Amino acid sequence: MSFVDTILKKRYGKALSFEEIDVFVKGVTDGSIPDYQISALLMAIVLNGMNRQEMTNLALCMADSGTYADLSFCHGIPVDKHSTGGVGDKVTPLLLPLLATFGVDSVKLSGRGLGFTGGTIDKFESIKGFNTSVPTEDFPRLINETGIVLSAQTPDLAPADKVLYALRDVTGTVDSIPLIASSIMSKKIAGGAKALVLDVTCGSGAFMKTRDRAEELAEAMCRIGKLAKIKTVAVITDMDQPLGRTCGNTLEMQEVMETLTGKGSPDVIKVVCTLAVQLIKLAKKSEKMSEKELYDECVLRLSDGRALKKFIEFLASQDGELTMNGPVYRELPHEAMRISAPCDGYIKHIQADEIGNISVKLGAGRVVKTDTIDYGAGICFYAKVGDKVKRGDVICSLCHGIERRIDDELLFDLMEEIYDCYEFSDKPVRVKDPIIKILA
Amino acid sequence: MSFVDTILKKRYGKALSFEEIDVFVKGVTDGSIPDYQISALLMAIVLNGMNRQEMTNLALCMADSGTYADLSFCHGIPVDKHSTGGVGDKVTPLLLPLLATFGVDSVKLSGRGLGFTGGTIDKFESIKGFNTSVPTEDFPRLINETGIVLSAQTPDLAPADKVLYALRDVTGTVDSIPLIASSIMSKKIAGGAKALVLDVTCGSGAFMKTRDRAEELAEAMCRIGKLAKIKTVAVITDMDQPLGRTCGNTLEMQEVMETLTGKGSPDVIKVVCTLAVQLIKLAKKSEKMSEKELYDECVLRLSDGRALKKFIEFLASQDGELTMNGPVYRELPHEAMRISAPCDGYIKHIQADEIGNISVKLGAGRVVKTDTIDYGAGICFYAKVGDKVKRGDVICSLCHGIERRIDDELLFDLMEEIYDCYEFSDKPVRVKDPIIKILA
Repeated sequence: MSFVDTILKKRYGKALSFEEIDVFVKGVTDGSIPDYQISALLMAIVLNGMNRQEMTNLALCMADSGTYADLSFCHGIPVDKHSTGGVGDKVTPLLLPLLATFGVDSVKLSGRGLGFTGGTIDKFESIKGFNTSVPTEDFPRLINETGIVLSAQTPDLAPADKVLYALRDVTGTVDSIPLIASSIMSKKIAGGAKALVLDVTCGSGAFMKTRDRAEELAEAMCRIGKLAKIKTVAVITDMDQPLGRTCGNTLEMQEVMETLTGKGSPDVIKVVCTLAVQLIKLAKKSEKMSEKELYDECVLRLSDGRALKKFIEFLASQDGELTMNGPVYRELPHEAMRISAPCDGYIKHIQADEIGNISVKLGAGRVVKTDTIDYGAGICFYAKVGDKVKRGDVICSLCHGIERRIDDELLFDLMEEIYDCYEFSDKPVRVKDPIIKILA
Repeated sequence: MSFVDTILKKRYGKALSFEEIDVFVKGVTDGSIPDYQISALLMAIVLNGMNRQEMTNLALCMADSGTYADLSFCHGIPVDKHSTGGVGDKVTPLLLPLLATFGVDSVKLSGRGLGFTGGTIDKFESIKGFNTSVPTEDFPRLINETGIVLSAQTPDLAPADKVLYALRDVTGTVDSIPLIASSIMSKKIAGGAKALVLDVTCGSGAFMKTRDRAEELAEAMCRIGKLAKIKTVAVITDMDQPLGRTCGNTLEMQEVMETLTGKGSPDVIKVVCTLAVQLIKLAKKSEKMSEKELYDECVLRLSDGRALKKFIEFLASQDGELTMNGPVYRELPHEAMRISAPCDGYIKHIQADEIGNISVKLGAGRVVKTDTIDYGAGICFYAKVGDKVKRGDVICSLCHGIERRIDDELLFDLMEEIYDCYEFSDKPVRVKDPIIKILA
């Protein structure tokens, strides 16, 4: 059977067999299937879908296209966490040390930011000296020392996914639940974890704009996890406004430090501790506590210095430069423009993806992979959805690296764009719970 | 706007603007849009469709990708005819001389056969010396001499269509009404005719297997014709069994000669004369006859020697070798195996596409473009759907070129395949009218 027959089968809405998906992924990996046939099949998958078995097989075959991580050096059940991305999402830097206080080891392989969402690797690289390219042979030593490894994904992890992703990016086939779900899960399967918590973001600052789509993606990934024998829980979290008080790399790491010293934003604390509870339970380290007790214990450890101690040890173990006051940053933020409320009222909405794009324009992120980053750039939020403001109150500020200059014209343009992101209301606005749903 | 946005627009089911289609076709023609983006858009078009204006714009832009034929040397309104392909379809060689007897000039640019359908150019090339590569500058002289030019399509006619077709062939995107309709119509628009009759075949020996699909294609092409200011009529014809008494190149040209000397098969006569009536009306050469009178006049001229005389003049004008008895063929057919009815009864069905494939295996056609042809190969039908046969009666025969040898084992395999194509019934079988519907 030729590959055209596989394309035709999906074109006519039929399910592909394991063998057909296997041949496809092998052909993608070794380059024997031409790009134009791959992209035709991708578009057919986008428009005709995949059933749960097809998605699982695609994830398994993509995982199998590279090497598998061996996490047997971890104490207990190796866990992993994944977020589908957001604006101001500083959950990972908080979650890892919190888990470590419970003896839950984490080997976290992360990506860089592209477009309106930030990337965990970029955030850690705002710290001078911090090494995000940890050789695999150093993982056991680091886990023994701190219980935490954070490193950039290596090219040998699900290489077929990288080829497919690059092609999806230029053929309008990124936004597809079967393709997103199998892409994420292929890396998780290859990453070697046996228990997984997925933070599926939902709203204007997420890729899944509606709750229905977020649930669909969450269910798809949970099904793949189940069929691939990874204990998987998905937490659908609100990303309809930026998470916490900042977005941008140094700004978010500074917010992490504030959170670890008892000055955290309630939405950040809630998301981090909810995910932590699920992971600790999956890792069977909950020491007979009820879920409520465990949650309260997480909130306590996040702010009482225990998570902070772990965090500092972890930064040091990966060569992050530290002083008595915390990390040393590559670039410090300079508040270039404060933006005031144009009227009295309650903040009704903050369009988070646009906020992310403005942050990118300030220099905090990348439009294309080769763009360089201003680690000091980003946005601080002084008022969030539900907050009552008076005309003239500062609602947010635009920042850039202290040693960099930004054109005034650009700043004023961005101010206009910021105003387009905010909606105000005369009446009080209900604040949404950042945790929308938990699926197991 | 980048081309990814165009793909995304179609992916989300929106209509593309003239400008977007224009940029697409220009990028296809000059090679600036990569194949993988073209194939992603093609698959999105296949699955999300195109409205009539989009199809028309696609046809117009593809026509515009090459040169336009200038048919101003034709007397009166230049007409054209197109068939969507079939098995045993010898309509064009009969239609052209018949039209010429009415003073209707035809410049017919045809293709070669591929797969189960034959091609008009191959049929004419079965005649020794016949020139199918007529230089454009000779068209006016030939039209003045005989009213007929038949030539192979040149590469400068709608070159974008050629690129798209090659890609569709390997990406499972051939079978799509918007893409088929705009492909055909692009060549007709570039071909310069102002009136057009489309023979839209329907049934097992056609690309459109059902009447619904054939009507949909016919309507799509008529709409494009209308918007492109070409007077267009579509005739939906039955191709559920092979047309006439033969398939194969020399065999079909021999059947053409028989038809022109009063020994035509009723289905062939009906299709040829029906198309002729439509074309003569569009060309305004019907001399105040009623449609019925015109049809009868066509039947008369087809068999009384008038069309034959034009045919012989036309063959001579394009260097076809002739004797007193008609054309000289490159290869004569040798009847290698006669196949008998396996039972008493009425022939209920002849699976025409499979008949076409068997004919290709005998050497009459091509699987890939570079295959060579045995002009003498093909199949003769001694009984057709509706005919009553006795066990042992010859129903058809397999032929190959008289100077060629065919392996007995292959012949016996093909005999088995022939039996799979035939269905018999105890009860009389109604013979379908070869003309299903006329759409204007």
